[in-house]
Amino acid sequence: MISNEGMFRVGVLGHGTVGSAFAALLPEQAQRIERITGLRPELSGILTRREGSFEQILERSDLIVELIGGLQPARDYVLRAMRAGRHVVTANKQLLSHHGEELWEVARAEGVQLRFEAAVAGVVPVIRVIQESLAGARIDRVHGIVNGTTNFILTEMARTGETFADALAEAQRLGYAEADPSQDVDGRDAAAKMAILARLAFETPVHIDQVRYEGIEQIQPDDLEYARELGLGLKLIGTAERIGDGLSVRVHPAFLYPGHPLASVGGPFNAVTVESDTITEITMSGPGAGGPQTASAVLGDVISAMIPPASTPAAAHELPIVEDVLCAFYIHLEVADEPGVLAQVAQVLARHGVSVKSVVQRGLGDQARLVMVVHRVLESRFRAAMQEIAQLAVLRAPPRAIRVLEEEFL
Amino acid sequence: MISNEGMFRVGVLGHGTVGSAFAALLPEQAQRIERITGLRPELSGILTRREGSFEQILERSDLIVELIGGLQPARDYVLRAMRAGRHVVTANKQLLSHHGEELWEVARAEGVQLRFEAAVAGVVPVIRVIQESLAGARIDRVHGIVNGTTNFILTEMARTGETFADALAEAQRLGYAEADPSQDVDGRDAAAKMAILARLAFETPVHIDQVRYEGIEQIQPDDLEYARELGLGLKLIGTAERIGDGLSVRVHPAFLYPGHPLASVGGPFNAVTVESDTITEITMSGPGAGGPQTASAVLGDVISAMIPPASTPAAAHELPIVEDVLCAFYIHLEVADEPGVLAQVAQVLARHGVSVKSVVQRGLGDQARLVMVVHRVLESRFRAAMQEIAQLAVLRAPPRAIRVLEEEFL
Repeated sequence: MISNEGMFRVGVLGHGTVGSAFAALLPEQAQRIERITGLRPELSGILTRREGSFEQILERSDLIVELIGGLQPARDYVLRAMRAGRHVVTANKQLLSHHGEELWEVARAEGVQLRFEAAVAGVVPVIRVIQESLAGARIDRVHGIVNGTTNFILTEMARTGETFADALAEAQRLGYAEADPSQDVDGRDAAAKMAILARLAFETPVHIDQVRYEGIEQIQPDDLEYARELGLGLKLIGTAERIGDGLSVRVHPAFLYPGHPLASVGGPFNAVTVESDTITEITMSGPGAGGPQTASAVLGDVISAMIPPASTPAAAHELPIVEDVLCAFYIHLEVADEPGVLAQVAQVLARHGVSVKSVVQRGLGDQARLVMVVHRVLESRFRAAMQEIAQLAVLRAPPRAIRVLEEEFL
Repeated sequence: MISNEGMFRVGVLGHGTVGSAFAALLPEQAQRIERITGLRPELSGILTRREGSFEQILERSDLIVELIGGLQPARDYVLRAMRAGRHVVTANKQLLSHHGEELWEVARAEGVQLRFEAAVAGVVPVIRVIQESLAGARIDRVHGIVNGTTNFILTEMARTGETFADALAEAQRLGYAEADPSQDVDGRDAAAKMAILARLAFETPVHIDQVRYEGIEQIQPDDLEYARELGLGLKLIGTAERIGDGLSVRVHPAFLYPGHPLASVGGPFNAVTVESDTITEITMSGPGAGGPQTASAVLGDVISAMIPPASTPAAAHELPIVEDVLCAFYIHLEVADEPGVLAQVAQVLARHGVSVKSVVQRGLGDQARLVMVVHRVLESRFRAAMQEIAQLAVLRAPPRAIRVLEEEFL
């Protein structure tokens, strides 16, 4: 099925947010992919609502990427592609939660790959981790935040005290909720994803209709307020777990204590925790949606289908090692408790381009402690400033400094 | 290389904590592995300090698991195994951070798999995610907590206010630090792991000697105390990032703000965040060490080497769906502000076996709000109690209930 001329032809069905991001990403990464797989990937056709023929695209593709969504004609296309001996990569959670057993059986029978990382939690690699990394572990429970719309709404309600309706409107304004958000807010979207995760984790057929689900429409702002007093935060949680010899799969809002690994997952992010006696637990988090993010998950699947990564590819280049990097710092100074000390220290910092973010000063008899956090600066400049500060007559002990990492994305 | 009779023979070098856990796990999971791969795995020999011959084990194995550690004779064994056409799975970070390029080149030349998930962050699937899930993404930065000993020590220092020396002694008592912890606490162990991650993320050779590292021996309890006032928590952070056309790879203690995805990773856990323009970021966390955990990561690699998972295996069974599950609940009641209301509610809960964990009561003129969290109980019992509470004459509005998830591991 692999083309003769060292090429690997990828046909794309659907040209929405994810489809167009994928069509842009594939040529951008083609050279890297050729290095990894030995094959040059090529877009062989894109089926949009107005243009293209499925038959023609199928004919000239080694692999079909299905990004149409919904049950039909997606099911038909995926089945026909696999029966024609083509690998398939899909992001379609509805399709798999309704017709997964049929599709997986055809994939096994035809000896083709059917990959679907992007169907659950976007770029968070939960499908691969359950199917491959944890293939040797008996999984007891999978817990997850698998819907970014509801997580954004709950984060907003907790942050601002506003109602569900207002937070939903904000989510729609920012593009985190669709015009018709009903399947997100009533829990059905998360239920489809949990059906897929439960199938993989527990090796038993799970249809979306077997998943009990509740949404977040009923949540009141004062529930969140009282919960905060009790130290709790609210998430829409999907759960799949062994109970005796059976299985429970469900989606409902739930409070979490701050120590819970899913408690700190805010905004539109997704996260999944997998628990097993052998491994204790693994938690993965990241963006659960978005065109480029989902396209990146799709591309990871395409590359895996191109060739099993039997070994680490040869190094692509020799990057020089950089020693002097930007970093923020915490500074701890024991100084004489006299007027002008802070000004002296601040002057030295300013001369080296080190800018102060926060200061705590505390008197201790005839000396004082000055604790500061400074903004990101080249380490060499910071070290030069600290050497000069160490020479100040007001210093009572060698200065101490520890780096501070600032989060860029959250 | 695959044996004739549908078997796959696994030879194990080393019989320490991980080796013995692996030797126990493989037969336990043999049936599942056969279902996934079509091959029955079998232990073909274990090389201990006292018993076994490498040559004999190699002769009767399809794959060699190297769990001896250190540079020699591990390097020699791994090279000889690959040159004899055997796949190799190793957990040896020292070996890969010193001789990775040589070993990966031999693997490519011989067409065998060299897998090493357990060499970095134990069961946290960071190697697979970087090499496979993110094969299509241009990675900008990898940040991680990749040493469980130091993370445990820093967590203890922050929690108790004790010194580095006392926290280290506690870690040794609990088995989180070795008798000679020098490579853990001075940052060299983390440096080896970051060299491997940098190599994979940036496709450039990185030797451990190119990694700048600092440890945690100099951290003072009052740094942690002041930092808390500033809202900061301390971790030993490994970083590998692109800077211009170069690369910086380094390990040092660093403060994190609470929103940072690594900030909530406590105790002996490991976590890695991978950042890329395309995907924003993915964070993975889990136990970074431990015999059974590491053995599980090794087994995931062995299964991957046995057969690329081309498709989802047929369902293994049909687990019944369980509807009635244990859950803790938050309860919100609007009640008359009169004596005995709490007692009435508590009685109903007690009659149904629902046990109260915490209560917030607040008066509002002639009525009051009663907000409670109750311990885990069967949902059916809880629903029965709530139905009865809804009938109480003192209720001023329909009761509200939301589930509370309790974390079992952290």
